Amino acid sequence: MKHNNRGENAILNRIVARMVDRARNPAGHRLALGIGDDAALFRPKPAHEIILTCDWFLEGTHFLRDTHPPDAVGWKCLARAVSDVAAVGGTPRCFLLSLALPDSHTGRWLEEFLGGLRRASRKFDCLLAGGDTTRRAEILINITVVAEVRTSRAIRRSGARAGDLIYVSGRLGEAELGLRVLRRGRRSANNKNPLTRKHLYPSPRLALGQWLADCRMATAMMDLSDGLSSDLARLCEASGVGARVESEKLPAVRVSDSDRKLGLDPLQLALHGGDDYELLFTVPANKAGMLPRKYKNVRLTRIGKITEESGVVLLQESGGERSLISGGWDPFRTKR
Amino acid sequence: MKHNNRGENAILNRIVARMVDRARNPAGHRLALGIGDDAALFRPKPAHEIILTCDWFLEGTHFLRDTHPPDAVGWKCLARAVSDVAAVGGTPRCFLLSLALPDSHTGRWLEEFLGGLRRASRKFDCLLAGGDTTRRAEILINITVVAEVRTSRAIRRSGARAGDLIYVSGRLGEAELGLRVLRRGRRSANNKNPLTRKHLYPSPRLALGQWLADCRMATAMMDLSDGLSSDLARLCEASGVGARVESEKLPAVRVSDSDRKLGLDPLQLALHGGDDYELLFTVPANKAGMLPRKYKNVRLTRIGKITEESGVVLLQESGGERSLISGGWDPFRTKR
Repeated sequence: MKHNNRGENAILNRIVARMVDRARNPAGHRLALGIGDDAALFRPKPAHEIILTCDWFLEGTHFLRDTHPPDAVGWKCLARAVSDVAAVGGTPRCFLLSLALPDSHTGRWLEEFLGGLRRASRKFDCLLAGGDTTRRAEILINITVVAEVRTSRAIRRSGARAGDLIYVSGRLGEAELGLRVLRRGRRSANNKNPLTRKHLYPSPRLALGQWLADCRMATAMMDLSDGLSSDLARLCEASGVGARVESEKLPAVRVSDSDRKLGLDPLQLALHGGDDYELLFTVPANKAGMLPRKYKNVRLTRIGKITEESGVVLLQESGGERSLISGGWDPFRTKR
Repeated sequence: MKHNNRGENAILNRIVARMVDRARNPAGHRLALGIGDDAALFRPKPAHEIILTCDWFLEGTHFLRDTHPPDAVGWKCLARAVSDVAAVGGTPRCFLLSLALPDSHTGRWLEEFLGGLRRASRKFDCLLAGGDTTRRAEILINITVVAEVRTSRAIRRSGARAGDLIYVSGRLGEAELGLRVLRRGRRSANNKNPLTRKHLYPSPRLALGQWLADCRMATAMMDLSDGLSSDLARLCEASGVGARVESEKLPAVRVSDSDRKLGLDPLQLALHGGDDYELLFTVPANKAGMLPRKYKNVRLTRIGKITEESGVVLLQESGGERSLISGGWDPFRTKR
């Protein structure tokens, strides 16, 4: 963990005080050096591969300074990066935090941010190993997560084959609905409000991803960060296949009557809403019977089938079918 | 490597086309997945530890859009992060690139940036493994480098002991002088101008760092990124020791008579100038005889001695001595 000049010692000290739990990281743990040195050292497990992923989390692009509670910014910046680890079936080990902050945000905002980051770090068992801090007019965050997976067990996007069944975890569109609610500003943004919770405090599906990798059940997998219509198209492209999705099977977010009247449609939210961080995966038809309906309380839903012909087709409840255009519907997409 | 929406496919494709050399990264290489998938996979060497380091490189803070050639921005963002690997004695393996760009910079600027980045990637034998791209009004770069070192061979900042001799590589103050020249704008900024070269295209001392780690010669080490006066104080603090530096021994930058008349002083540049990316290391007195005067054409200079009493003292050519204050002299420091 470095900082760019002496004035930033205060930020660094605060991060270390809040984030580094000496009792949880005694000598002999596989993580060493790091905070205060030029680089972090990490001792990999034998017969495992290292997973590397990084994510921007930028004010104005990924969150809004005045709308998103700092605690949620801290949680979500790590959760999003950890979701990329879940997406290949890995186990997080440690992360690097690059943080740029305005002077005005080095007090209470930083404290609350670190509170959320610390809860996420403990929840995902992913320790702060190092980073870089600097002053800046805007809040800029970049997170690198380092994880492990048994050699050759990582699940890629590219393994889907014609005939495989397509599954998703959880409910789709919940985070997008939460964002809409937050933007309307009628309900408070916190961890207790179920409508905004999934947008503010996503839960990457680590246990499910690891289980699918361990039992070699899934042929392809990714996390749903940009919405099903965009992400399924990417999985199909990487695998050189297409897909047919049955709209009536989609586990869509529940939308209240009053929200429906405001034009919020469960199917559209489920197809195009981003930020759910659920898993999208494919399973060979002959293994599908071994898949439970729920894994550790997370619902698994078959939503369609991989096809030889490229392109993603949506079978409508009316019986008709149409091409599914990536993220075609969301007017806020470019603002996220 | 991810990108945030379809509009950014063009940036991603350009990065892949310029940076990913399929011939150099065939199947079976220890780097897999990565570009286009959720995360990169990296197979660590047995009996080695993983080194992790990340660095901001931000427009306005670390470089200027209109002053620094894009080719130099590409080279330097990786070179700085790789220098942190040299500082612990490691060998770089791969890096993650997080890049945020304005629309205006996705054409020629990006091409030239990738040209410099590619040369650095080849020079340091450090492959692009993944990253994250997004659009942004300002140019934001974050680099994570992953490296390896034989287990327990990494050299930390904290190992210096009283009586150890203090060494630096190369000449100090050259990069700072180059920055001054660049700011005056009288000379062109390019790789051929020796005055600006070290500021624009620093050479991390990888071979030297690895050699010092392999032969267990150094007790403590770090790279000189913020200037000797700041960085030596950090090494001493981490080691719980102090230091005496002999000013007449310092391998200071050569300053022309005309630049001296403008107030540029070699000693001040050597003490407080940043961005040299030379190595600062300590060697037990009884091993110092084994240290060559040059290692692979890089000069090694003994500049002083570690002391039991804390604080860094400068012995002046006049015979007097004074406390060395970290970075006290540089009026541009806060602008860098």
